[in-house]
Amino acid sequence: MRQWNQFLEPYKQAVDELKIKLKGIRSQYNLEDIHTPIEFVTGRVKPLASIYDKTLEKGIPFEPSAELAAELPDIAGLRMMCQFVDDIGTVVEILRQRKDLKVIEERDYISNKKPSGYRSYHVIIEYPVQTIDGEKTIFAEIQIRTLAMNFWASIEHTLNYKYEGEMPPAINHRLEKAAEAAFRLDEEMSLIRDEIQDAQQYFSAFKEY
Amino acid sequence: MRQWNQFLEPYKQAVDELKIKLKGIRSQYNLEDIHTPIEFVTGRVKPLASIYDKTLEKGIPFEPSAELAAELPDIAGLRMMCQFVDDIGTVVEILRQRKDLKVIEERDYISNKKPSGYRSYHVIIEYPVQTIDGEKTIFAEIQIRTLAMNFWASIEHTLNYKYEGEMPPAINHRLEKAAEAAFRLDEEMSLIRDEIQDAQQYFSAFKEY
Amino acid sequence: MRQWNQFLEPYKQAVDELKIKLKGIRSQYNLEDIHTPIEFVTGRVKPLASIYDKTLEKGIPFEPSAELAAELPDIAGLRMMCQFVDDIGTVVEILRQRKDLKVIEERDYISNKKPSGYRSYHVIIEYPVQTIDGEKTIFAEIQIRTLAMNFWASIEHTLNYKYEGEMPPAINHRLEKAAEAAFRLDEEMSLIRDEIQDAQQYFSAFKEY
Amino acid sequence: MRQWNQFLEPYKQAVDELKIKLKGIRSQYNLEDIHTPIEFVTGRVKPLASIYDKTLEKGIPFEPSAELAAELPDIAGLRMMCQFVDDIGTVVEILRQRKDLKVIEERDYISNKKPSGYRSYHVIIEYPVQTIDGEKTIFAEIQIRTLAMNFWASIEHTLNYKYEGEMPPAINHRLEKAAEAAFRLDEEMSLIRDEIQDAQQYFSAFKEY
Repeated sequence: MRQWNQFLEPYKQAVDELKIKLKGIRSQYNLEDIHTPIEFVTGRVKPLASIYDKTLEKGIPFEPSAELAAELPDIAGLRMMCQFVDDIGTVVEILRQRKDLKVIEERDYISNKKPSGYRSYHVIIEYPVQTIDGEKTIFAEIQIRTLAMNFWASIEHTLNYKYEGEMPPAINHRLEKAAEAAFRLDEEMSLIRDEIQDAQQYFSAFKEY
Repeated sequence: MRQWNQFLEPYKQAVDELKIKLKGIRSQYNLEDIHTPIEFVTGRVKPLASIYDKTLEKGIPFEPSAELAAELPDIAGLRMMCQFVDDIGTVVEILRQRKDLKVIEERDYISNKKPSGYRSYHVIIEYPVQTIDGEKTIFAEIQIRTLAMNFWASIEHTLNYKYEGEMPPAINHRLEKAAEAAFRLDEEMSLIRDEIQDAQQYFSAFKEY
Repeated sequence: MRQWNQFLEPYKQAVDELKIKLKGIRSQYNLEDIHTPIEFVTGRVKPLASIYDKTLEKGIPFEPSAELAAELPDIAGLRMMCQFVDDIGTVVEILRQRKDLKVIEERDYISNKKPSGYRSYHVIIEYPVQTIDGEKTIFAEIQIRTLAMNFWASIEHTLNYKYEGEMPPAINHRLEKAAEAAFRLDEEMSLIRDEIQDAQQYFSAFKEY
Repeated sequence: MRQWNQFLEPYKQAVDELKIKLKGIRSQYNLEDIHTPIEFVTGRVKPLASIYDKTLEKGIPFEPSAELAAELPDIAGLRMMCQFVDDIGTVVEILRQRKDLKVIEERDYISNKKPSGYRSYHVIIEYPVQTIDGEKTIFAEIQIRTLAMNFWASIEHTLNYKYEGEMPPAINHRLEKAAEAAFRLDEEMSLIRDEIQDAQQYFSAFKEY
C-alpha cells in the first residue's frame, strides 16, 4: 500500500495544482466582465479499484511502474464544465497556450461522438511536478464538456459498470433517448448564446452563485 | 461598510456551516452504497448590489435592519442539485427531519412552474448562529433542483438582468424552447432512474468524480 | 473497514462542522477590531492505529461500539491555539455559552500541569450530529493552549511514542528544560499583553496573515 | 478599484498555487516517514492599506504599475513555519532546487538578526503565472522561520503599527525579553532535535494533528 501511496503522490499533487490553476482561469474571466467559458472544475486521482480493472483490460501487471503510468494517462484526471458547446474550443485553446503544461494529444468526441452517444473533448497533457527528489513529469487527462454532456456521461458510466459493457437493448435504447435530449438542450442553449454573452457584461456585480 | 460587514457576518457564517452540513448528507449516502439524491451543493451570501436592488423593488430602506432581514429571507442562500426530479422530494424530507434548522415555508415551483418556465423547490428555514454576543437566528433559503433546472435558471437569471424583466418576445420564445429541452432531459432521465439506482450499488468502489 | 467508516462518519462530520464554527469566532473578533483570543484552529479524527492502542491500554474490544465511544471521548478532537495564556479562559467561557454544544467536563492542566510538564486546557463536549438516520450525539474533545504549549506538547507526544512511556532520564531532563523555556516565553508574552491588545485596534486594516 | 483587482489577480493566483505547492512538500515528507521540516504554510496578498503605507514610505505613486511591482516584492507573500532552526536551511535548499520558481534574492536574518530582535529567513522568488492574456512573471516573498520566531514577529508587527516605529523604551525592553525567551525555546528544541527526528519514524501511523 505504501508503494502505491508513493507512486500516486505526484498525481495527487498534480490534481491539486491543476484544480487551482484551471479554476483561476474562471476568476480571470469574471474580473474582466466577459462571459466565462468555464462553469466549474473537478479533479480526482483514479481509484485503485479502477486502476486494477484497467490493468486487467490491458493485460499489464497491477503494480506501480513506468509501464502502468504510460498505459494509463488518466490516473490524474481533471474535468472542465462549460455552459455552451462553443465554449469548449475556447477552453482547449487556452490550454494549448499555457507554458506550465504541454498538450500531447487531443481526442474530439464532440465532432465524432462515440457509438454509445458519448460526447466530450479529451486532452492529454504532460505536467511537471516538483518533488523532494527532483522534478517528475506525469501525464494527466483533461475532459472538457458541457453540463448536459457531463450529466449524460455520468449516467452511462454508472450503467456500464453494472452491465460490464453488455447493456440490454432496452436500456441501451433509453440511454440513446437521453443522449438525444441532452444534445437537444445543448442546441437550444447555443441558439441563445449570443444573447447571454451580451447580457453577462451587465451582470457581474449581481452574479450570485 | 463596517456596519454591513457586521450585519452580514452571521449570514456568512450560516452559509459556511450549512454548506458543510448539506455536503455531509452526500457523504453519508456514498458510505451506505445507495444512490445519493444530492449531486453538489453551493452557497453564497447575496451580493450588496442585489440586496440594494431588492430594497428598491420592495420600497424599504437600504440599511442593515431587522426589517430588511425579514423582507429578504434569501440573504443566506444554498442550492442543492439533484440527478433526478424524484430525488428532490427525498432531499426536502431530509431537511424537514433535521433538528439543527427549522423549515418555515416551502414553495413548490416544480408542480407549479412559474410562467417564465422556472422550475425549482424553495425552502425557507430558520437557522440559529452562535456568535460572541449570543445566539442569532437568521433566515436562509435553500433551492433544490435538478442539474437541467439549474442550467436553465442560470441562463434566465442572466437574461433577466439584461432586459430588466422586459424580455423581447423572440428571446422569450428561445428561452421557452430551452426550458422544454431541459424538461425533456429530466423526463428521459427519470425513465432510467430505477436502472441507475440499482446500478449504483455495484459501483461505489469505482466512483471516480 | 466499512463498519469502521460508518462508525467514524459522524465524528468526521462533527470535526468538519466544529472547525467552521470555531474559526468563525475568530472572524467575528477580527470584524469588531478587538484582540482575538484565537490564533488558529485544527481538528482531526483519531487515526485507527491510535484508537487500537487506546483499546489495548483500556482493555476494551477493538470494535465500533457504544462502549468504545464512551471510553474514548477524543475520537473527534479539536485544538484552539491562543496567543496569550489569559486568552484561554476567554475561549473556555465562549464555549460554555454556545447553545449548539454542551460542555460536560473540563480539565485544567494549566493551573495543574501534568508531572511531565504538559500544560493545556481540555474540554469534553457533547455535540449533536444530524444524519440521514436521525440525530446522533457524540463526544468531542477540545484542547485549548498557547502556541508555546502546543509546540512543547507536539514534541513530547512524538517522544512518548518512541519510548512507549519509558523515557530515558537524559531525554526527560531535556524535555523539562524545553517546557521551562516554553513557560518562560508565555510569561514574557503575558507581560506585554495589555500593550498588544491596545495596539490591535489600530491594526486590523493592516493585518496581513 | 477594478484596476487594482486586475493588477492583484496574478498575485492572488500565485499565492493560491504556491500554498498548494509548498504544502505538498510536507505531504511528501510525511509519506516517506522522515521528519518533515515544515510545520505549516500560510499565504496572503498584501492588503491595500499596507500597500498604500509602503508607497508613502518609498515615495512612489499609489497606483498599479510595474514600478510598484518592482519596489514591493512582497505583494505575494508566503510563510513556512518549521519545528527546528536547523530545518530552515533544508527548506531553503528545497526552494533553490525547484524548477517552477527562481530564487533571486536571500536575506538571512537568522545569522544576522535585526536590531529589533527579528529573526527569519527571507527568500525573494520570480514566479510565472499563466493568465488568459499569456504568462506574467511576478515577484513573491517566502519567509521561513520557526514557530517561536513567528510568534515573536507577530507581536512586534502589531506593536510597530501602534507606535509607528517610535516604540517607548519600556515596551522595547519587554520585546527584547520576549525575543530572548523565544530564542531560548528554539535552542532547547535544537538540543532534542536528533531524538525527535529519530522518534518520528516510529510515529507516522499515529500522527494525529
